Amino acid sequence: MKIEEIENPKFLKKLSKNELEELSNEIREFLIDKVSKKGGHLSSNLGIVELTIMLHKVFDTPKDKIIFDVSHQAYIHKILTGRAKDFDTLRDFNGMSGFSKMSESIYDSYEAGHSSTSLSAALGMALARDMNKKKNNIIAVIGDASISNGLAYEALNQIGSTKTKLIIILNDNNMSISKNVGALHNHLDSLRNKKGYLNAKNNTKKILNKIPYIGNKLSNIIRNIKESFKKLYMKEGFIFEELGIDYYGPINGHDFDELEQYLNLAKKSKKPVLIHVITKKGKGYKFAEEDTEGIYHGVSKFEPEVGILPNSDNKVMSWSEVISESLIKLMDKNIIAITPAMANGSKLIKFSKMYPKNFIDVGIAEEHALVLANGLSLEKKIPIVFIYSSFLQRGYDQVLHDIARMKSHVIICIDRCGIVGSDGETHQGVFDLTFLLPIPNLIISTPRDELEAVNLLKTSIKNNYPFCIRYSRNKIIHNETLTNIKEFKIGSWEQITEGNDGTLITYGDFLNESINIINRLKENNINLELVNARFQKPIDEEYFNKILNKNKKIFVYEESMIIGSLGSYLKTKTNKEIIIYGIKDDFICQGTRKELLKMLELDEESIYKKIFNEIKKV
Amino acid sequence: MKIEEIENPKFLKKLSKNELEELSNEIREFLIDKVSKKGGHLSSNLGIVELTIMLHKVFDTPKDKIIFDVSHQAYIHKILTGRAKDFDTLRDFNGMSGFSKMSESIYDSYEAGHSSTSLSAALGMALARDMNKKKNNIIAVIGDASISNGLAYEALNQIGSTKTKLIIILNDNNMSISKNVGALHNHLDSLRNKKGYLNAKNNTKKILNKIPYIGNKLSNIIRNIKESFKKLYMKEGFIFEELGIDYYGPINGHDFDELEQYLNLAKKSKKPVLIHVITKKGKGYKFAEEDTEGIYHGVSKFEPEVGILPNSDNKVMSWSEVISESLIKLMDKNIIAITPAMANGSKLIKFSKMYPKNFIDVGIAEEHALVLANGLSLEKKIPIVFIYSSFLQRGYDQVLHDIARMKSHVIICIDRCGIVGSDGETHQGVFDLTFLLPIPNLIISTPRDELEAVNLLKTSIKNNYPFCIRYSRNKIIHNETLTNIKEFKIGSWEQITEGNDGTLITYGDFLNESINIINRLKENNINLELVNARFQKPIDEEYFNKILNKNKKIFVYEESMIIGSLGSYLKTKTNKEIIIYGIKDDFICQGTRKELLKMLELDEESIYKKIFNEIKKV
Repeated sequence: MKIEEIENPKFLKKLSKNELEELSNEIREFLIDKVSKKGGHLSSNLGIVELTIMLHKVFDTPKDKIIFDVSHQAYIHKILTGRAKDFDTLRDFNGMSGFSKMSESIYDSYEAGHSSTSLSAALGMALARDMNKKKNNIIAVIGDASISNGLAYEALNQIGSTKTKLIIILNDNNMSISKNVGALHNHLDSLRNKKGYLNAKNNTKKILNKIPYIGNKLSNIIRNIKESFKKLYMKEGFIFEELGIDYYGPINGHDFDELEQYLNLAKKSKKPVLIHVITKKGKGYKFAEEDTEGIYHGVSKFEPEVGILPNSDNKVMSWSEVISESLIKLMDKNIIAITPAMANGSKLIKFSKMYPKNFIDVGIAEEHALVLANGLSLEKKIPIVFIYSSFLQRGYDQVLHDIARMKSHVIICIDRCGIVGSDGETHQGVFDLTFLLPIPNLIISTPRDELEAVNLLKTSIKNNYPFCIRYSRNKIIHNETLTNIKEFKIGSWEQITEGNDGTLITYGDFLNESINIINRLKENNINLELVNARFQKPIDEEYFNKILNKNKKIFVYEESMIIGSLGSYLKTKTNKEIIIYGIKDDFICQGTRKELLKMLELDEESIYKKIFNEIKKV
Repeated sequence: MKIEEIENPKFLKKLSKNELEELSNEIREFLIDKVSKKGGHLSSNLGIVELTIMLHKVFDTPKDKIIFDVSHQAYIHKILTGRAKDFDTLRDFNGMSGFSKMSESIYDSYEAGHSSTSLSAALGMALARDMNKKKNNIIAVIGDASISNGLAYEALNQIGSTKTKLIIILNDNNMSISKNVGALHNHLDSLRNKKGYLNAKNNTKKILNKIPYIGNKLSNIIRNIKESFKKLYMKEGFIFEELGIDYYGPINGHDFDELEQYLNLAKKSKKPVLIHVITKKGKGYKFAEEDTEGIYHGVSKFEPEVGILPNSDNKVMSWSEVISESLIKLMDKNIIAITPAMANGSKLIKFSKMYPKNFIDVGIAEEHALVLANGLSLEKKIPIVFIYSSFLQRGYDQVLHDIARMKSHVIICIDRCGIVGSDGETHQGVFDLTFLLPIPNLIISTPRDELEAVNLLKTSIKNNYPFCIRYSRNKIIHNETLTNIKEFKIGSWEQITEGNDGTLITYGDFLNESINIINRLKENNINLELVNARFQKPIDEEYFNKILNKNKKIFVYEESMIIGSLGSYLKTKTNKEIIIYGIKDDFICQGTRKELLKMLELDEESIYKKIFNEIKKV
C-alpha cells in the first residue's frame, strides 16, 4: 500500500504479520527520506515503528487515546492517521507540526514538547473517563529518560494509589536524547538484561532452575533464595510494582507477536499496568543505530547515503559551541558543568571528555540540576548549569527560592533563547527574560558576539553572584584567536554608534539587524545612537539616565515577549517615551527564524520602517 | 539545665539517657510555651525532639552539616545551637526566622521554605566535599510528604547512582501538613506496620518463622516463598534499595537508643543510606497528637490549656474560606477540586467531605496537580487547582506549556498572594502576577470582596478559558447572604469613585487602603477616580483608554513586584505618565503585614502622602 494513501489506522486490523513487516519497512524508508529532506526527529521515530503500528492495531483509536510523551516520536502515528502527505511541510511555517497537535487530527489527544507530562495528563483523562462512566483506553507512551523526571514520578505515585485503568508503555531505548543516567536507569538496565523473563507472573519455573543447591538448613535456603530472588526476580519491575502498578516485560519492541500479546494483556487489565518495551533507537538506519551521542535525535537536512557531516565551516559556530569552547578556555578546577540531559545539544561532549570529573549529566531533571548547583556553590565550587530557555521554565522556583534568594554563585547558561524555529510553540525561548527580570539578586546578560560571550563567562566566573548568560540557537561568526579577554563591569552597557536623533537599545543577536537598520537610517540622514544593553539586569543606570536626558525618542528592540521585557522594565524607571519592539501577547508557531521575525514584524525591514516613521512623526 | 543557656550542642555528648529524656521534656514545654505565644510550626517540631537531639549528639556539627527539608521543623536545632533566647522574637519583624537561616548561625547549612530541596542540596554539598577531599557528614532530614515530590525523586535518582557518602533521615510521621497520599505513602505505610523488622540485613530468622508450610513441590515452595517475601520482606525499603540507597528501618524516632544505634551505623557507611525514622507529629501535646487535619501544623497564638479554638467571629473570614464556601455555593457535578497537600490551608476540608468524589489531594506535587487538571479539562471536567502563590512557582512551566498553550478550561485559585507576614521571604506571594502576565491566553483576576470572589468564580466556571483567581491570606468581611451573584464581562474594570484630579488603579485588598486614601485626599480637595482593576489580564482596554484620555496623573497601587507588575504592563500600552506603587526589587523579610507595608512604603499613610505630593507638584 502507498504510505501517502493511508487515511486512518483501520486497515491495520486485517494485516498479516508479513504485511505488517512490509509496512514497517516502507514506513522506515519514508521516514528517512522525509526527515533527511526536512530535518526533524529521526532516531526516536525509527525506534517505535512496530510499537506504533501495533498500538493502532490493538486499540481502537481515536476512542482509545494514545498520549505520546514529548511527542517528537509521533511521526508514525501521524502517518497512520492520514498525515503522510503532510510530511513535505513537516516543521515548516504553516506546515505540519513535529509534535502532536490536537488541531491537526482527532487522533491527537494531547500536546507536548516538554517531557514527562504524559502520565499526569493520562491520569486526568482516565479519572474523567471513570466519572463519565466510559470504558475507553488511555495509553501513555513514555521514554526511559522521561520517566525519570520528577513530574512523571509524581504522576506514577498517584497512578499507583488510584487503581484506575491506565496503560503505560515504557519505551526503553536505553539512550534517549543522550546517554541516560541515574538510579532508575540502572534499575531499567538490570531489567533489560533479563530478556527472557517476560512476565513477573509467569516465571517461577525459570527462576527455579537458577536457584542454587538447597541444603538442609531452612535458614540457608531462605538466605540463598533471597539472594536469588534479589538477583533474578526482584529487579523485574518491582519499583513499579511497589508503586502499585502491574509490571510486564521487558518485551521486544520490534517483535509484532510479543507486542500484540502484551498490548492485549494490558487492554484486558482493570488496573494501571506498565509494559516495558525495549526498542532500538534509530532502528533500520545504520548511522542512527550506531550513534551514541544523540546526533541523530533531532537532525537538520542531510544526505541519507552519507549521514550527518560535521560542520565544516570554521567561520561560523553555534552559540552553544561558542560558549562551551569559551568554558574550555577559561576552565578552572572548581568549575562544574551540569546539564539536564542536553550534553549534545549544549555542545558539552568535548568538555565532558576533557574534564569528566567536572561534568554532571543529571538526566531530564531541571529542578534537581539547579538545586544541586546551589549545594555545590555553598561549598565553594563554581557550578554552571547549561539549560535551554524553554526548559528553564521547569526550574523557575529553584532559580528564585534557592539560587537568587540565597545569592549563590551559580551560573546559568541559557541556550535557545529567542526564536528557535521549527520546533515551534513549546520550544520558543521568549519567556525566560520575563520571568527572570522580576527576581531580585539575579544578573542577566546576553552577549552580542563571541568575544562578548567569553568576557561575560569570565565575568560570571570571577564574581560571586547568581549570573545568567543567555544566547540563541543561531550561528555566529567565529574568530580563531580572541584578544582582549576581560571582565565587564557588572551592568555596563556599550555604545555602538553615536547619534542625536534618538536611541536604539538592543542586545544579543538583534545587534546585527540593528547595525543594518542604523546604517539605512543614516542614509536618510537619521542618526541614531545604538546601545548594546549586554546586561538586562542590572541595567547601566548612568548610561540610561544620559539617554533619558537627551530627550529624544528611545526604542528598545528585543526578541522577548513585550510584557515583562527589558523595555517594560526600563519603562518602570521613567515616564519618558520608550517604544518597545518585541513579541506581542501570543504563542509563536513554527517556521524559520526569518519567516517568524517577519510575521512578528521584528525583521530588519519592519523595524527600519517603524523607526523611520516614528522619527519622521516628530 | 536552662534551655535559654544552651550555647551550642557540645554539652549533649556527655548526657546520659535520663538527662536526654529530661532535656526532651524541657524542650517540649519550651516549644509549646513559645509557639503558643508567637505562633509558628508546632506539631512537626514536637515530633522530632529526640531525633534532633540525637543528630547533634552523634554528629559533629557544624563540621557535619544537617539540612532540614523545608526547615519549619528546625526549632529544636535552633534551641540546641544557642538560639533559645531568640524565641521571644520568633517570626517577628527583625526577629528570628521560623526557618533555617545561614545568617543566623553557622549551624544552619542550607535555607528553605519550599519542600523537597534538601536531597539535591545535600548531594551538591557531598559531591563538593568529595572533590575537596574532606570527610565531613552531610545529613538531609526530610519528611514522608516531601520525599514524594518530584524534585526529591530526581535527587534520589542521582544519589543512588552516585554512590557518595550521604545520610538521608526519612522523618515519617504518616501525616505531614495534611494526610499524606500516593503510592509511595502506601509503601511507607507497609514499612511502618512492620516495626520490629528493623534491618533488611538482619531479618532472615524472623521472616523464616512466618513462611508457610513447605510441601514437596519445589515450584509451590517457590510460589509461596515469593508471596511471603512479597508480603514480609520486599516491602522493607526496597524502593530505596532498588535506587541504590541502603535502607535501614523503620526505627522508633522517640527512642534514644535506637536512634543512636542507627545514626552511628549511618555515620560509618561509605555509601548513601536512608534511615527510616517513625515519629509522632505533635508528640507530647495532646491536642496536636490528636489532630488529623493539620490544624496544629502551623498555628497562630493560642492558649496551651484549651488548644486552638475555631474562628468564632462570623463577621470576618479568611479569603481561603470565602473561596471554598463560594465553591460549595456554585458546585457543579463536573467540578473537581485539586490540592497539592494543602486541604487544610486552603480550607477545603468541608468541601472534601461534602464531595469526596470531586476532590483530589495529590500530595506535594504542584507540577502534577496542574497537568492532571489539564487532562481532566480535556475530557470536559472543570478542574480547579487550589495552590499558594509561592508554591505555584513550582508549576510555572505546566501553567505555560500545558494549560495556557492549549487554552484549557483549568481554574487556578491562587491563595496567599501578596504579603504573607511571618513566614517571610520564601512564602511572600509577590511574584505570581509577574510570571503569569507574560503568558498568553491566561485570564488573571483578583477579587476585592466576598461578592466579587463569588462572581469571579462563577465567571471562571462558565467560561472556557484558563482562569486564575488570586487572593491573599488576609481576613475579609463576611456577609451571610449574598445577592446579585452574576458573571463578569471578562476583562471588565469597575469605577469606585469619580474624580478629575487623577486616577488611582488598584485591585484586591488594596481597595480598602485606597478608599481611605481617596477620602483623605478629598478632604484636601483632591478628587481621584478610583478604579477596581479586578482583571489584571485582559485589561479593560476601553476604560483604560478613557483614563488615558483624561490626561491626568495615573497611579497604580499594587501588592506585587514593580518589575513585571500590572503597572508595568499598562505602561507597555502607553507613553503617558503612570506612577507605580509596588514592591521594589528585593526579597521581603518576615513581619506583620502592617510592618512590612510600612517598610515597603506601601501603607495607606505613605501612599496618601506620595499621591498628595504628586498631585500638588503639577
